Amino acid sequence: MATKPAIPKGTRDFSPLEMARRNYIFDTIKDVFRLHGFSQIETPAMENLSTLLGKYGDEGDKLLFKILNSGDFLKGIDPAAIDPAEVNKLAVKICEKGLRYDLTVPFARYVVQHRSELQFPFKRYQIQPVWRADRPQKGRYREFYQCDADIVGSDSLLNEVELLDIIRDVFSRLNINVVIKVNNRKILAGIAEVIGAPDSLVDITVAIDKIDKIGLENVKAELAERGLAAEAIEALTPIITLTGSTAERLAALKSLLAASEIGLKGVEELETILAMAGTEGAEIELDVSLARGLNYYTGTIIEVKALDTPIGSITGGGRYDNLTGVFGMPGVSGVGISFGADRIYDVLNTLDLYPDDAIAAPRCLFTNFGPAEAARAMELAKQLRSEGISCVVFPDAAKIKKQMSYADAMKFRYVAIIGETELADGTVTVKNMAEGTQATIAAADLAAYLSANSQAPHSPSSL
Amino acid sequence: MATKPAIPKGTRDFSPLEMARRNYIFDTIKDVFRLHGFSQIETPAMENLSTLLGKYGDEGDKLLFKILNSGDFLKGIDPAAIDPAEVNKLAVKICEKGLRYDLTVPFARYVVQHRSELQFPFKRYQIQPVWRADRPQKGRYREFYQCDADIVGSDSLLNEVELLDIIRDVFSRLNINVVIKVNNRKILAGIAEVIGAPDSLVDITVAIDKIDKIGLENVKAELAERGLAAEAIEALTPIITLTGSTAERLAALKSLLAASEIGLKGVEELETILAMAGTEGAEIELDVSLARGLNYYTGTIIEVKALDTPIGSITGGGRYDNLTGVFGMPGVSGVGISFGADRIYDVLNTLDLYPDDAIAAPRCLFTNFGPAEAARAMELAKQLRSEGISCVVFPDAAKIKKQMSYADAMKFRYVAIIGETELADGTVTVKNMAEGTQATIAAADLAAYLSANSQAPHSPSSL
Repeated sequence: MATKPAIPKGTRDFSPLEMARRNYIFDTIKDVFRLHGFSQIETPAMENLSTLLGKYGDEGDKLLFKILNSGDFLKGIDPAAIDPAEVNKLAVKICEKGLRYDLTVPFARYVVQHRSELQFPFKRYQIQPVWRADRPQKGRYREFYQCDADIVGSDSLLNEVELLDIIRDVFSRLNINVVIKVNNRKILAGIAEVIGAPDSLVDITVAIDKIDKIGLENVKAELAERGLAAEAIEALTPIITLTGSTAERLAALKSLLAASEIGLKGVEELETILAMAGTEGAEIELDVSLARGLNYYTGTIIEVKALDTPIGSITGGGRYDNLTGVFGMPGVSGVGISFGADRIYDVLNTLDLYPDDAIAAPRCLFTNFGPAEAARAMELAKQLRSEGISCVVFPDAAKIKKQMSYADAMKFRYVAIIGETELADGTVTVKNMAEGTQATIAAADLAAYLSANSQAPHSPSSL
Repeated sequence: MATKPAIPKGTRDFSPLEMARRNYIFDTIKDVFRLHGFSQIETPAMENLSTLLGKYGDEGDKLLFKILNSGDFLKGIDPAAIDPAEVNKLAVKICEKGLRYDLTVPFARYVVQHRSELQFPFKRYQIQPVWRADRPQKGRYREFYQCDADIVGSDSLLNEVELLDIIRDVFSRLNINVVIKVNNRKILAGIAEVIGAPDSLVDITVAIDKIDKIGLENVKAELAERGLAAEAIEALTPIITLTGSTAERLAALKSLLAASEIGLKGVEELETILAMAGTEGAEIELDVSLARGLNYYTGTIIEVKALDTPIGSITGGGRYDNLTGVFGMPGVSGVGISFGADRIYDVLNTLDLYPDDAIAAPRCLFTNFGPAEAARAMELAKQLRSEGISCVVFPDAAKIKKQMSYADAMKFRYVAIIGETELADGTVTVKNMAEGTQATIAAADLAAYLSANSQAPHSPSSL
């Protein structure tokens, strides 16, 4: 035990400052969810492996953390018959449970399991960690929080509008400038249809997703490599190189997709959503190269990018028509969004957008010079707390220098000094740590004094 | 996939109502922690098994959930050499990580790992789930939340007083009547010393812990069985049958323990703590039979019991002198408490102590009778939200009956009806669901109307 203890790679401890910052983000998002009438649920960290396996593709299955059965996990297994080349087969025999990989599959399982207790439309949010046995790297963790809101049991496009509204509201409160990119899987299907390659939807979208990175000519080459006919590639070109405003491009798409019923439906859905969402708040922009989640999204696709720092997508979502089919409950349509808490955290850190109040230390430290002084401090601390002011009494009768450096390091805004004189006079000497000033006031006035002098706090990080 | 999906035994989903109730408990506790200057931290769900093993006794080691190494977990292991009778040896070879079993060991690991970043005294709280492979039974789960506050790096008894203050404040806010039982391990050691059985501390405390349940004679018999000498049992009797107030019993203990330095120290510590804690708030009572956590507590021992329902301990804690020694950092004294969230939840449910506001549904449902009406509703909903009023627009233009039963089932307090007339007149018809009354008001007055009429809400559960 002599070596310094550590945590598993890809996991993190969150310090007090990190927690204060993360709580600021989650509280902001939660408050918006609440105003929109979303209810919170939680599901267990462990799900039956049968619930998780096969839901995230072969790659996802490999990234599931599996939990060893407790007790005699080898019961009924002949060690001699174990094939070391087939460890996955052994894994599912000795592990019945796994850690959740996302919040969507547990939510689908929840909806099916509790269908008789739920009212539809069901608006739920869920903020919990998920675990993936990914190779850890910068910005990619094996344990991270997801923050999802979904509305299930309603086809109405009003739900999409509400989610866009939530996105605008959240990022406006967080002071992050964003652009909201939208697309519709039906438009992508329409494109594949009109260029005569209805089965190449995924190839097409994967390629056009790269247009910004590698340019049109390389995209064309890649499409040809993927086996798309030259005519199809030519037919695709005007579509993926559309310019102009979102309204102009939607109008152009309407004529380009005139022969595709599903394509027109996609354009119409987007037009309806954009009209209802209005122009107040963050810009909503059509991006036909947006092709995330094609395995499950069936309508609207949403992605949010921060404008002032190059970090990629910080929120995503979309409409799925068959969330719960895999658990035997077909026909439940839903639409959801997921806020990328870790990336939002990185944006706020990079741009230093935390309000002082959100990450403030407790307001006041009381010094401790002995039992009588400490008793008076405890009494005053109780009064402050009853008025909602956070404070700490230094527990040990240490030298004043030590107590003051503690106050400084912990970034307390005030230190309330109670020495012999103050004790005798019924006063407190209050030191304002940011300004270096101090004043002796009546003990009874302390709460009012600390409140009145807290209107324009200095940033703790600028002390 | 035809069978209804389920979750692992001993785990739970938390529904919206359950989450609202649990959030009420956690938010109340967090607010008190915050006022007392505790900072929140979080640690990963997974710890290295080496961090966890050996910290909870042999029984605890068995109850750890182990996580199968990802990839080729059998690498380097010859299946033929596996001894089915020694599965635990195999387990630690194929599992490097485990799920945390409590919050104390991860906290000790955190303090050691981050010692250079921390200021002492360090006041932290932590609210996270823990996992134990216990046999599930009523009230015992394999995943449950712990809610811990600790102060480390200070010997001062002021810290004990602060924790007692926090306990009183939390249960007063939650409206739960409690008695706080306190003891001191040094008193127990003193007792063992003066009766001439210093090595039988655990036997003695286990036996006297049962005095309420099985009576004095049976306790004596059990002590004899455990090998305690007859004289020692006789010497013990006056101590464990002390009557009178806490102050009277402490005074009596002082003479009974006159020959034991450590015993007197324990009495003195308790006297100091009780004098500082005062008599305002929940009663604090000496209970010499209180003997929880003797493996780690070295001073004060605390246990809280609810008075109005027989549920056992709902909070516990104590002073430990060597939290971090096992990780190579000796000499760090601390004192902590742990609120039993699940039991507190049971008490609040049994006594129906939730304030209406804490578990209220969103305030208002807007009906939806078509695109124009829905657009007006969306606009008004936005206004309400900007004034902090939670509301929902029904997403589908369904029949009014369906929308009203949704409002009823979801326990909305108000339904705002916008039909053709209201749309034309710029009005809203507001139905108060609890009282069955309705009124037509100007749309612009809606926020004020809903706020003014929300002063004396009916309990959602009494609708």
